[in-house]
Amino acid sequence: MAEPLFNRLCLIGLGLIGSSLARMARERGDIARTLVACDHGVGVAARLRELDLADVVEVDAAEAVKGCDAVILCTPVGSFASVMAQIAPHLAPGAILSDTGSTKGSVLRDLLPLLPAGVDLVPGHPMAGTEHSGPDAGFSTLFQGRYVILTPGDYGSPAAQEKVAELWRRAGAMIESMDPTTHDKVVAIVSHLPHLIAFTICSTADDLAQETREQVLKFAASGFRDFTRIAASDVDMWRDVFLNNREALLEMLARFSEDAHALGRAVRWGEAGFIEDRIRRGRKIRGSLIELKQA
Amino acid sequence: MAEPLFNRLCLIGLGLIGSSLARMARERGDIARTLVACDHGVGVAARLRELDLADVVEVDAAEAVKGCDAVILCTPVGSFASVMAQIAPHLAPGAILSDTGSTKGSVLRDLLPLLPAGVDLVPGHPMAGTEHSGPDAGFSTLFQGRYVILTPGDYGSPAAQEKVAELWRRAGAMIESMDPTTHDKVVAIVSHLPHLIAFTICSTADDLAQETREQVLKFAASGFRDFTRIAASDVDMWRDVFLNNREALLEMLARFSEDAHALGRAVRWGEAGFIEDRIRRGRKIRGSLIELKQA
Repeated sequence: MAEPLFNRLCLIGLGLIGSSLARMARERGDIARTLVACDHGVGVAARLRELDLADVVEVDAAEAVKGCDAVILCTPVGSFASVMAQIAPHLAPGAILSDTGSTKGSVLRDLLPLLPAGVDLVPGHPMAGTEHSGPDAGFSTLFQGRYVILTPGDYGSPAAQEKVAELWRRAGAMIESMDPTTHDKVVAIVSHLPHLIAFTICSTADDLAQETREQVLKFAASGFRDFTRIAASDVDMWRDVFLNNREALLEMLARFSEDAHALGRAVRWGEAGFIEDRIRRGRKIRGSLIELKQA
Repeated sequence: MAEPLFNRLCLIGLGLIGSSLARMARERGDIARTLVACDHGVGVAARLRELDLADVVEVDAAEAVKGCDAVILCTPVGSFASVMAQIAPHLAPGAILSDTGSTKGSVLRDLLPLLPAGVDLVPGHPMAGTEHSGPDAGFSTLFQGRYVILTPGDYGSPAAQEKVAELWRRAGAMIESMDPTTHDKVVAIVSHLPHLIAFTICSTADDLAQETREQVLKFAASGFRDFTRIAASDVDMWRDVFLNNREALLEMLARFSEDAHALGRAVRWGEAGFIEDRIRRGRKIRGSLIELKQA
C-alpha cells in the first residue's frame, strides 16, 4: 500500500460528498493516518460513530482542524465564510485547505481574506453527486470516473496542488484545472441552470389545478420524470449554489430564456424550419456527448 | 392462445412505436391473423421485409388499408390529414381506426371530417418511447407497464373502444380514458414542455463561445446529460407535436417562464426563503411520483 497522503485529514461536513470521501479514505487506507470527521448537524456525529466513518468525530470545527495537515470543507458553500472564521485561527502552518463546493468565485471571496500565512488553499469541485443527501447517502465509489475541477492559484503551492490532485486520483477521479471564472460559467450551464429549470417545472406542475396535477403525476413519462430526479436534490446545498453563483447563473438563465421564447414564437407562428433546427442542435450536442463518452 | 383480436390489422408508419407494435403482434400471435405494415419512407419497406415485421408490406396507404378491420396510424401527427385523405375512401365499413399520436385535439381536427360512416375512431396515445427512432429502434416490450391514454367519444362505438383497449392490454399497457383537451394539457406539461426545454438548453449551450462549449461538453454532469437524452428525440415527430399542441404548449411555456423568472429574481435579490420553497416543491413532486411508483 502507498504511503498515506496525509497524516491527519479533517473533513468538515459529512453529507453525500463528505461521507463518500470518508468511506473512500477508510476503504483505501492510504489517504490519511488519522481521519477526523466534523459535522454539527443534529445527530450526525452519533451517526458517524455508528457508521465508523472516521477515527475522530468532532462537532466543533475549531477543535477538529487542530494539528491537521489537510482540511477539506464539504459543507454547503453558503457556510464557508462562517466555517472559515471558526477554523482560520486554528489551521496549522503548512496545512492544506481545500473544499468540494460547486461554486469557486464565492469560495475565494469567502476563504482568501482569512487564509493564514503558510496555509495553502487548493479549491476543488468534484463533478459527482446523486439526488440523495446526508451521511447515509455516501458511497466510496462516488468519484470513480468523474471529473474533479481544481481552480488553483498563487494561494496554493504546486506541492499542495499536487497532493490534492493525488487525493482525487486515488478516489478514482480525473483532474482538470480551470480558472474560477470559467469554472463558474461552465457549471452554471451544465448543472446550475438545469437544476433551476427542474425545480421550476416541478413548481409549475404543482400550481396546476388539482385535477390536472393528479393526471400529471400519473402520466409523468420519461421527460418529466428525469426533471424530477434532478429536482429531488438537497435544499440547503442548492439554495447556496444559486446565491453564490448568481452572476453566471442569471446570465445563463437570460440566454436560455431568450432561446425558449424564440422557440415558443416559432411554435406560435408555425415556423417549422426554425423548430427543426433547434431539435437538430439538441441531437448534435447529444451526439458530441456520446463521442466524448459523457452520455 | 386467445382468438386474434383482428382479422387484418394495418399499421401505418413503422418507426419506434409502429415497429414495436408490429413486433409485439408478431411475438404474441393473438393480435391479428394478418398484419399489414405500411411505410413510404425510403428503404423502410425493404427493411420491414428483412426484419419480417409483417405478413404484408405496402408503401401505398390506400392499398394497405383495403379489407382491414383495424388501422392504426403511427406516423408523426403532422401527416395525419394527408394520410387520412389517402385512406378514407378505402376504409372498410365496420373498420376501426386508431392512432398513436401524442396530440389528440389535432387528431380529431384532422381525422373526423373525413371519417366514413360506419368506421369507428378510437384515438390513443401510448405514453412510451425512447430517444431512438426508426423501424430498427422498436422492441416488443416497449409498452409493458406504461399508460396508454384513449380519448374516446361518440365517433367510436363502445365495442370498438373495447377492442382497442384490449390490444393495448395485450401489449402489457395500462389503459386510461380522458377527454382530448385534458389530454393535451397534461402531455404539454408532462412531456412536450420538457422536450422544448431540453432542445432549448442544448441550443443555448451550443451558442456559447467555442472554448466554453468544449468545457460544457466535457463536464456535462448528470443535470445537463439528462436533458440531452431527452433532446436526442426524432425531429419530425417533435416538430409535429409542437405545432399540433400549440395552445396547450404555449400556455405551459408561459406559466413555466413566469415561474423561472420569479426564481431568477429571487436569486438576484438573495431571497433565500423563496428559493428554498421552490426547491422543496420539486422534492415534493418527486416524492409523489415515488409514492405512485412513477419515479
